[in-house]
Amino acid sequence: MKVQGTHYRSIWYDYKDCQVKIIDQRWLPHDFRIVALTNLNEFAVAIRDMWVRGAPLIGATAAYGVAISLSDDASDSGLKNTYDTLIETRPTAINLKWALDRLLGALTPVSEDERPLKALELAHQVAEEDVGINKKIGEHGLEIVKKIASKKPAGEPVRMLTHCNAGWPATVDWGTATSPMYHAHEAGIPIHVWVDETRPRNQGASLTAWELGHHGVPHTVIADNAGGHLMQKGEIDLCITGTDRTTATGDVANKIGTYLKALAAHDNGVPFYVALPSPTIDWTLRDGIAEIPIEERAESEVTKMTGRTADGAVETIRIVADGSPAANPAFDVTPARLVTGLVTERGIAEASREGLLELFPERR
Amino acid sequence: MKVQGTHYRSIWYDYKDCQVKIIDQRWLPHDFRIVALTNLNEFAVAIRDMWVRGAPLIGATAAYGVAISLSDDASDSGLKNTYDTLIETRPTAINLKWALDRLLGALTPVSEDERPLKALELAHQVAEEDVGINKKIGEHGLEIVKKIASKKPAGEPVRMLTHCNAGWPATVDWGTATSPMYHAHEAGIPIHVWVDETRPRNQGASLTAWELGHHGVPHTVIADNAGGHLMQKGEIDLCITGTDRTTATGDVANKIGTYLKALAAHDNGVPFYVALPSPTIDWTLRDGIAEIPIEERAESEVTKMTGRTADGAVETIRIVADGSPAANPAFDVTPARLVTGLVTERGIAEASREGLLELFPERR
Repeated sequence: MKVQGTHYRSIWYDYKDCQVKIIDQRWLPHDFRIVALTNLNEFAVAIRDMWVRGAPLIGATAAYGVAISLSDDASDSGLKNTYDTLIETRPTAINLKWALDRLLGALTPVSEDERPLKALELAHQVAEEDVGINKKIGEHGLEIVKKIASKKPAGEPVRMLTHCNAGWPATVDWGTATSPMYHAHEAGIPIHVWVDETRPRNQGASLTAWELGHHGVPHTVIADNAGGHLMQKGEIDLCITGTDRTTATGDVANKIGTYLKALAAHDNGVPFYVALPSPTIDWTLRDGIAEIPIEERAESEVTKMTGRTADGAVETIRIVADGSPAANPAFDVTPARLVTGLVTERGIAEASREGLLELFPERR
Repeated sequence: MKVQGTHYRSIWYDYKDCQVKIIDQRWLPHDFRIVALTNLNEFAVAIRDMWVRGAPLIGATAAYGVAISLSDDASDSGLKNTYDTLIETRPTAINLKWALDRLLGALTPVSEDERPLKALELAHQVAEEDVGINKKIGEHGLEIVKKIASKKPAGEPVRMLTHCNAGWPATVDWGTATSPMYHAHEAGIPIHVWVDETRPRNQGASLTAWELGHHGVPHTVIADNAGGHLMQKGEIDLCITGTDRTTATGDVANKIGTYLKALAAHDNGVPFYVALPSPTIDWTLRDGIAEIPIEERAESEVTKMTGRTADGAVETIRIVADGSPAANPAFDVTPARLVTGLVTERGIAEASREGLLELFPERR
């Protein structure tokens, strides 16, 4: 999508430099920095320390990481070491495992000599597929938006709430939860997005607001606490979020706090959709709350915050009383019963085993 | 309660200086500053700009504000002007109106000469009553804690979650939601408090964590988003919050985001108690969502945050993408159906008209 009028993806292969480049998202929205990732360690750091984030982009980054790592060491042990290093970087995102398994499976039978080029081809494929999938998600999601718009007086915006950033910087392009927004915006349907700031890492306030702003989509940032009240007051027509891992039964692991919004949506009769590329479905899982591991991140993400001072400097401040500890679970699980529908590249599924199997019959 | 070993109230009359003094809470937890309020305007600013906050303390501050204002102008028009100025400062807290109505009613028949001293007596009364009420709330709340503790293996802490600050700095002393915690702690019952940071003003991270820390109560700060997940995982035995206004039917207006925690508690079978001095009950209201006005505060509270840099300076940073607007509703309403019980100075009421009338039969 667009940054100051220029189209970018969140990860790309720069043929001129023979390098994989990413937007280092730690600096957004304050700085737009592009960096090259040139070896396995840099890829591992970029994923673990969230230079890149979002399940689909993590998958694509891991795939490119395999390609670049194999250009240093394409042996079986090099391949194994690459897999083992990258799989450790983030425990919740299923796309990481999905992408790594895919490359490992495809590359194992290939000769050492051919592996680096083959791996790069596969990484391109993973990235292109992600773009295609997200475009499809947007087209299906657009139908939901159109239906709500058709019941409103002409010109009145469809008011959506989203949590965290399942936008284009969380994917290779389009985003998942944002793809219906961009499609609606480009179709001329007026929309307004309530953006949860999404503590503790503020991906809503810093990334979703940033990308919607650059693309010209009307939006308003709110504290995570505000969404329930807005739903009580009839200010939200639908919720749409992304997911990091979805069970075969339709439970959804997404950024911490998603569950609270789903509860409020259910309590107020507001439809709650989750946009997901099918690689985020973990077909082996039946009970998200019991089975999905939840990453516990550093307490400094809660106790400190980074932003820009009036002078323009980027500064980190402590916001918690001195001496008080903090806990920081990064995801929660929204049970399928609270999810109105799963917006996938193949269409909209009911959040249930049967609903998903209707769209993905090959998984029966 | 205690600050570095010394007992403080949040507002007091300093007989030596003949001045009303408060803790200027805007600087907590970074600085502990005591200031004198010396005229009507200073009282209005202190309430409106949240040098003091919390419904009971707002009531007590307004009462002292009347006393100090009347020492400048005790005429009927002075009394009216005082009332009109103070009533405008915060729209949601019912205690403000309660305290002002009480003083207006008691002072109107009194001669101009006697009004200043009488007003000061009444303000002392309001403050002392608040302390007594909160102590009672703590004693009744202690019974809930004891009951939960009795079902646990010896030594295992009772794990509570609280939202915002209904602690002693929100009252004259003891706090409302924190009073059962302090009573349990002093009774030697092990407890652990999950403290919601409470965006956008971070009263949990800055005030609740600060006061529990100074008093030696074990606690952990979490993002507001985390509470639902912790309840799903069985990490919370009970929730207890304060309230700014309670309807005669048991609906509760409290800091934005309280409703989301009540939904999660309900969904996970976790008891959700609200601690309230009876002056926060608005006996004229039947439907909290429809009838309680919700204060919309400045968007800068969402877009900016203040804390301490590594150098020790207090700095304000912008955390929202440039150009993105924000909305900031300050309270939400938790319907009575989600509230397990209302902990009042007279005991624990069911959150319903009948439940409240059993404890307050004079309101029948």
